[in-house]
Amino acid sequence: MPTPAVRFRVDFGRDEAVGPGKIALLEQIGRGGSLSQAARELGMSYRRAWQLLASLNGCFHERVAVTAKGGAGGGGAQLTPFGRQLIRAYRTFDAEIQARAARCFRPISSQARRRPRARKGAPVLRLKDR
Amino acid sequence: MPTPAVRFRVDFGRDEAVGPGKIALLEQIGRGGSLSQAARELGMSYRRAWQLLASLNGCFHERVAVTAKGGAGGGGAQLTPFGRQLIRAYRTFDAEIQARAARCFRPISSQARRRPRARKGAPVLRLKDR
Repeated sequence: MPTPAVRFRVDFGRDEAVGPGKIALLEQIGRGGSLSQAARELGMSYRRAWQLLASLNGCFHERVAVTAKGGAGGGGAQLTPFGRQLIRAYRTFDAEIQARAARCFRPISSQARRRPRARKGAPVLRLKDR
Repeated sequence: MPTPAVRFRVDFGRDEAVGPGKIALLEQIGRGGSLSQAARELGMSYRRAWQLLASLNGCFHERVAVTAKGGAGGGGAQLTPFGRQLIRAYRTFDAEIQARAARCFRPISSQARRRPRARKGAPVLRLKDR
């Protein structure tokens, strides 16, 4: 029986959502201590990583990471205690709701087809049996 | 303190996810007994509603709704017991994880800014304080 997977993001304000991409970026900053390296590891542009981090920092009264002075392309970056707290809360929540989904959707999952659809756009089932 | 809102979809197979749009469509079918009426109520095209329903029906071994014979534009549509079970499971799960998020992200939410960002695309915070 396939296990359902929940994809989610958490809205904290009107325009700001925290999802898997931003959390992965923070985790990578925590591992490597660099925004440009984190961007490379995640296959995104430095500009994109910078935007995600600016978005996160703008979302809360406390910063999630601070960047140190550096040359072009960026100096070091470091998570703040608040940034680490955000990662922990997100990962805890993630694990809990995946487990919850497995229980909650058990009777639904047991009916799920595993095969991919035959052709993109092709109707899987005729709605009207005339 | 703003309450976080979790936006989510549940993947049951490789290409099929059940999210708020499909559930809203099923609920509307349950209320009105018609796919075309449900599409109108939700502000989507009949074609789009048909696609969402076909996607759902193709996702599981059991159908979530059946459509009756009708003229152009569609006859009646009716939820199956499995479709009603899917809605119930989704709404139960939804309520549970929203409540869980409120608890899990309480220390994070207390730091959230409520104001919208000043201008779209404008950096909220300078990353480097040189």
